[in-house]
Amino acid sequence: MFAVTILGNNSAIPTLDRHPTAQIVTCNDQLLLVDCGEGTQLQMARYKIKRSRLRYIFISHLHGDHYFGLIGLLNSLSLLGRTETLTVFAPPELETILLLQLECSGTTLQFQLQFVPLTAENQGVILEDKDLCVSFFPTRHRIPCYGFIFEVQKRKRKIIPEQTRAYEIPAAYFSKLQEGADYQRKDGLLVKNDWVTLPPLPGKRYVYCADTMYTEELLPHAEKADLLYHETTYLHNLAERAAERYHSTSVQAATLALNADAKRLIIGHFSSKYSDLEPFLEESRPVFENTDLAEEGVTYLI
Amino acid sequence: MFAVTILGNNSAIPTLDRHPTAQIVTCNDQLLLVDCGEGTQLQMARYKIKRSRLRYIFISHLHGDHYFGLIGLLNSLSLLGRTETLTVFAPPELETILLLQLECSGTTLQFQLQFVPLTAENQGVILEDKDLCVSFFPTRHRIPCYGFIFEVQKRKRKIIPEQTRAYEIPAAYFSKLQEGADYQRKDGLLVKNDWVTLPPLPGKRYVYCADTMYTEELLPHAEKADLLYHETTYLHNLAERAAERYHSTSVQAATLALNADAKRLIIGHFSSKYSDLEPFLEESRPVFENTDLAEEGVTYLI
Repeated sequence: MFAVTILGNNSAIPTLDRHPTAQIVTCNDQLLLVDCGEGTQLQMARYKIKRSRLRYIFISHLHGDHYFGLIGLLNSLSLLGRTETLTVFAPPELETILLLQLECSGTTLQFQLQFVPLTAENQGVILEDKDLCVSFFPTRHRIPCYGFIFEVQKRKRKIIPEQTRAYEIPAAYFSKLQEGADYQRKDGLLVKNDWVTLPPLPGKRYVYCADTMYTEELLPHAEKADLLYHETTYLHNLAERAAERYHSTSVQAATLALNADAKRLIIGHFSSKYSDLEPFLEESRPVFENTDLAEEGVTYLI
Repeated sequence: MFAVTILGNNSAIPTLDRHPTAQIVTCNDQLLLVDCGEGTQLQMARYKIKRSRLRYIFISHLHGDHYFGLIGLLNSLSLLGRTETLTVFAPPELETILLLQLECSGTTLQFQLQFVPLTAENQGVILEDKDLCVSFFPTRHRIPCYGFIFEVQKRKRKIIPEQTRAYEIPAAYFSKLQEGADYQRKDGLLVKNDWVTLPPLPGKRYVYCADTMYTEELLPHAEKADLLYHETTYLHNLAERAAERYHSTSVQAATLALNADAKRLIIGHFSSKYSDLEPFLEESRPVFENTDLAEEGVTYLI
């Protein structure tokens, strides 16, 4: 399973039914949290997300609506008995803030909190494990801000059944073939792996563009994304205000998805001035049809 | 009107129906916020509390469940266009934390944020205006923690109607009498104020004991409170755990109210391990009958 669940789709001022930014990326048995606005721990409870399964947290930037819920979540995890290491990928100042808050409350977390600083200089791959590869890239925002690319690793080569039959390779050996091994037959013939398998299929990619103004600098990162998340703080009649505040409009998000040749777009980070979100779809879909609102509590398969 | 509205009655780990500590004290036309756990701004929206009417915020101590919601509230107030000064009474480290968070997000609040540090050395009256006097006192907790006394000022002296009639003082002069003025009659007689008025009635007092283990050091502060708030993190069978963690039990809260000769007690800061709160009342009321649960969304008149 590779999917994203929206916990918050609003911009800075939370409302009773729209929360600040937070998303859960599920990749097989692991959960990754992407941004963590105030109230995220309650949103996780509301949507039955198992806090204990979190291993990695990604914070795009230090505007409060993207991280004010983190310190409370860390405290709760510790009180609930977590002992497993938790890794936070974030702009480096976040470590200073969190450590100061822990110190002032005399709190020692019961688990190790590991920080990986995100800076413009070290952009690229930050996490690679058996299932998943995560990289990050800068967006254009008022303060340093980063988007993330989550790519499921498809490491297994694909068996060609006619070929394995032709070379009489026993099925018990297939898992080794999928990992790239050759096969030594009893008659002395060495069956090369690439005679009987095909390279792994490319992995699926979820691209999270965080907060950003419209910029084609994002295109190489968003290119051919299976799912693209792009903010749409404003409708397009406020394009000027959007640019002033380093945010984007409905039409701009859809234009980016179109130009990046993405498969699907979800839009969020709506200004709390809008109570009806349908106009965002009405403006986006004529530009990029496969657009949906990022709705809280909804899981989007990738 | 003098009243307290409960916004959060839970201890550290929030649940979907119980939030971390926050209370609104209403005194005539002003609102005071007492502690500000994560999600307080949403609780204010839920219970239709006008954020714009806040002038003073009191933070008892720097455990997160008492202040993690403050930075988000300040941000929202600024985004909503507040320009009026807001004063925060809190342990001094809070200023460092908030200023660091504002700096990292490149935020300049649109209003002046004034800090008044609370320390064991400067305990006593911290605020006095036409309606209200607020003082603070230390409680016994794992880190420095302070309780607050909110006392409505009754500054007007009470007219004795028979006496004002006897001295033939015109009703138009009564407001001056209530403020303590003497009355000069045309026949030359100076009517002394205390011939025709009585001293102001004593003001009503709400005493908020924040987080604390049971200690009779609180008695002088809680004495004869019209309304006393005392935490009851645990039921009494966990008295040992309560003491270890510098918290109190149901029976201890009631005992304090009894010994302080308080008029009424509300209890809160319940551990999230308890889903049923009735046992807290069952244990408290035999000791101090006029006890109620501090229920979220409920306003208690003082």
